[in-house]
Parts: sequence; structure tokens; C-alpha cells
Amino acid sequence: MIHKTIQLYSDKPTITVTTYVLDDSAEMLNGQKRAGILICPGGAYLGCSDREAEPVALRFAAMGYHAFVLRYSTYYGRFQAPDPDNMPVKPETIHPAPVRDIGQAFLTLRAHADEWLLDMDKIAVCGFSAGGHNCAMYAVYWNKPLITDHLGVDGAKIRPAAVILGYALTDYQLAMSTTHDPAETHVRHAAAIALLGTAEPDEALLTEVSPARLVSAETPPTFIWATVADTLVPVAHSTRMANALAANGVPFEVHLFEEGRHGLSLSNEATAGSCLDLDPDAAQWIALVEAWLKKRFAPDLPEMPLWMQQMNG
Amino acid sequence: MIHKTIQLYSDKPTITVTTYVLDDSAEMLNGQKRAGILICPGGAYLGCSDREAEPVALRFAAMGYHAFVLRYSTYYGRFQAPDPDNMPVKPETIHPAPVRDIGQAFLTLRAHADEWLLDMDKIAVCGFSAGGHNCAMYAVYWNKPLITDHLGVDGAKIRPAAVILGYALTDYQLAMSTTHDPAETHVRHAAAIALLGTAEPDEALLTEVSPARLVSAETPPTFIWATVADTLVPVAHSTRMANALAANGVPFEVHLFEEGRHGLSLSNEATAGSCLDLDPDAAQWIALVEAWLKKRFAPDLPEMPLWMQQMNG
Repeated sequence: MIHKTIQLYSDKPTITVTTYVLDDSAEMLNGQKRAGILICPGGAYLGCSDREAEPVALRFAAMGYHAFVLRYSTYYGRFQAPDPDNMPVKPETIHPAPVRDIGQAFLTLRAHADEWLLDMDKIAVCGFSAGGHNCAMYAVYWNKPLITDHLGVDGAKIRPAAVILGYALTDYQLAMSTTHDPAETHVRHAAAIALLGTAEPDEALLTEVSPARLVSAETPPTFIWATVADTLVPVAHSTRMANALAANGVPFEVHLFEEGRHGLSLSNEATAGSCLDLDPDAAQWIALVEAWLKKRFAPDLPEMPLWMQQMNG
Repeated sequence: MIHKTIQLYSDKPTITVTTYVLDDSAEMLNGQKRAGILICPGGAYLGCSDREAEPVALRFAAMGYHAFVLRYSTYYGRFQAPDPDNMPVKPETIHPAPVRDIGQAFLTLRAHADEWLLDMDKIAVCGFSAGGHNCAMYAVYWNKPLITDHLGVDGAKIRPAAVILGYALTDYQLAMSTTHDPAETHVRHAAAIALLGTAEPDEALLTEVSPARLVSAETPPTFIWATVADTLVPVAHSTRMANALAANGVPFEVHLFEEGRHGLSLSNEATAGSCLDLDPDAAQWIALVEAWLKKRFAPDLPEMPLWMQQMNG
């Protein structure tokens, strides 16, 4: 495995891609390129949660895919409790910085694709919560000037082949109008300052950051999962996204588990900070996405090993 | 993750432990030590197969356990087709070198246990085929002079807490008397020279390397899986081991899948070299062992996160 952390920009030490690149072996794919999963942890655009980073990357790596964790632009650059009354706007981390980071990460992957045996036509982006919002944003902006002009690159070179959204925020109008309890309002307020630079964004800005309102036929196939009991990011963010994908004829799959709170990640002991993060029902999402990915990303395997072909031939 | 390869002996470059040590995070176990899985790939004591190394380590790491791949003493030191007519005995790699390597690996883990947050009371050994034989050997020899005197260590310091055996060879008398097809006889002959230093071992030596005949009440809890259709290492190796564990009151679990050939490893795309290595039924073993390990190795999680406790208190 090639495991290292690469800075995306020389002047931004917290914006990084961490690699979990699988070893090649003559006994397995023998030089064939593999698909990759680029993971965006959640954290309300305040930081990137460890619970949705390395353990998730390892689970995808265990499927036989190269995995990458992207720590994109966030307000604090690390996971911490917010103080929305003391958050001067940081122009360098607000929209569109986070979604452009995904494009920049694609360029970094492309620069190493031959070295890592990475198939750039088979890259999925996978995000949770705010990281899911960022991936959904990328799913609708990857071929738009907001990204392509900024990076000076043809969209075809940074196209995601699939999108995986876990309890993702997809509609900012909905987010701003949802009634939360005081603790959740606190987080929403801080997250708005972090991403939008204001706690009172106008309608045009809200639409610009609402991927569920921007889906087109060019949005990649999408896998959505969430819990219906989620109070922080209501499940309507997932159903609205699904509705938009259906309306645009984009292939998609949805799994909404009745129970389970926001932020379950793998929903098992590998990502839990407390017993509240364990839900064996919701934990089934990873097997479901494994099956879904296999339809697109399974390697081409010979019918039998070379030595057996030679013996039979 | 701490990913590096450590030589167990300064003068033996091919005997190594490769680490997949998970990052600690205040959001998860926050300094609590984790269990570990030490993996011995198979390869007929001729080499260690990549198919039973890194991908398996990653699957255990994805469960939240530190994982380690041990490349123990083998004839060629790497995976290659054997030539039994041209195999001078190598005294340095024959029994008991391979099983002692596991003991030495435990000492290496122990030396780093605090640094890696590794719980030495929760180390499982997991082996496949010949690697399974090596783990089964360790399960019956870990507290015997063959290992403890050689290493100069109290057995309690190198005790495996659990043993996982995949299509393991456990009874050498059975192995030597099994009728194989010519290709398989070729491998068996080479493997005997590699492990035993002779293609015609005597009964005493055969017994000494037959863990199914050496099980005691001090043998650790054991998880066994295999395929009944395996022609290279017949399933009787698994049933004999189970029989011995039952007779000695050792906790164990067995899953024998009707179909599937020898050497399936994870039995999915992550470890396949050809379509012959795919069997969705047998692939269930990893979920079964995950559930079995959880009973012993699950971390102690608080009922709720610290910040929530403080809010409620």
C-alpha cells in the first residue's frame, strides 16, 4: 500500500489527499488499473471528521478499490465545536472553495494515475453530511465553468463516474427553513458562516449551493443512503435529490433506514465514538454500496489463471 | 495509519511484519487500545501469497482492528512455482522456524504496543492454508519450550487470544496419505521438503507438526472455515481440528461451505486472480468471523459522547 498525505496547494497545509493505494501483485490484477473512491468526510464545513475518513477509506480499500480521503476547505481546518458568535468570515474557505478542492484532487489523482495504477474513468466521490453536500455539488458542477475555468481543464478529465451520498445536505433552502432544536440551530448557523460567509444568505446563493435543484442528465449515477430519524439533516434532503435524479433520468439507488441518528458513518465499531453511533440495520449500507459499485467498477478477471490456461492449452 | 514493514531478524530480509495500524482519534476510541489481527498468508511453505496478505489485512483493519501481515520462513521467500526435483534442504526455513517466527512477531508487536495503542491481550492469529497450519501450530505450541525457551520469554506474554483458520492443513499424517492428482502431489512433495526437510518424514515428525493431534485446554478459541469441495487440503483437516477442540472443551466455531476450491482468501474481487477465486457463498466467512471476533474484541464504548454527558450532567 502507498499511504501518504499530499497537500493540494503549497500554501494550504490543511487541504490534503491521503492515499490508501493498494499494492499490485502478479497473483491478482497483475498491472491492471483499479477504480478509486475519493472520500469527503462531514463536519458542517467547520472541519473534517475522523469518523468519516480513514475507517471508511479502509472499508473501500478492502473491496479492492484504491481509496483517498480529501480534507477540503473548512472553517477551522480540523474538527472542533463551533462558536458562531465569534466567527469572522474567512473568504478563502467559503463556497466555491470546497467544491473546487474536489476538482483539484482529481488533478492530483490524474497526475499519479499511472504510478498508482488508478483508472481515472472509474473514480467515485463519496461524502457524508457536509462532505456529502460537497460531493453532490461536485456531481452538478464538475463540467461547469465554476470548476473547469478555475482549474483550466476540460471537464472530461475530472468527471466522477459515480457519487455516494450519506445523510447528505442537498437543498439549502430546505436547510435554512428547517426547525432545529437550539443545539442544532447553533451548528446550522456556524455551518452557514463557514460555507456561505453569512448566516443570512439570499435566495440566489441558496440555489447556487443546492445540488438537488441543479441536477441534470450529466449528473453521474448516484447512491444515496440516510436515516429517516435524522433530525439534523432531514431525510427530505435525500428524497429531493432522488426526485431530481429520477426527473433527469440519472441512474440511482436509495436506501433510507427508518432508525438511526445523524452521522452514523459505517454505523459499526470501526467508526463509533459511543454506543449512539452503532446501528446494525443502517450498517447494511456499506454492503449495499459494495454491490452497487461492483456493477460499475469490478475488475476484468480472466476465466482462469494464466498457468492453468497454459496447462489446458 | 502507520504502514511500514519491519524485519523480524536483522539477518533475514524476507521475514517481516507489515503494519496496518489505525490512527487514534479523540472522536473515536480516544487513546483506548485496540485488538490486533496477525495474518499468515498461505503458499505451501514455499512463499507467502499476496492474495492472503494485504487485502485480508485491510478487511480486518476496516473492522476497527490493527492488522499485521507476517511473512514467515518459507523455502523461496516469495511466491513461485516449485521444482521439487531441485530443492536442496534449507535448514534455516524448516520446522520449527515458521512457528517461532509467529512468537518473534508477538515480541515485535509487544515492543510497539504502547506506541501503536495495541492491546496485547487481544491478538488473534489468522492463517490460510499453510499459513493456517502455521497458526494452528502456534495455537498448540505458544506456551511450549519449542517457542518459549527459544525466545526466552514467558508464554503469557505471547499468548494468542484467538485463532482463525482458513482451509488450513492441521494433520500431517492425513496430508501425506491423501491421494492427490499429479499437480497437487507435486505441490505436496515440495511443501514437505520446504517445511520438514524431507519428502518422507517419519511418524514422530508428522505428529510433531500435526496441530489437530496436539490440541489441549490451553489452545485458544478458534474459528475454522473451509470448503468441502477443496481437493488440495481436504476438509477433514478442518473437521479433525474441530473434533480435537470439542474434545478439549475449547470454544470454537466452524463454517464449511459446500462449494469452492482451495485458496479462496476473501473469495471476492479484492483477492481474486481469476474468476475461479470468486464464490459469493464462501465469501460470507468474513462477516461470520467479524461477528465472532466482536464477542471478544469489541472496544468498550461509552453510552454517549463526552460532550453529551456533560450537557446532560
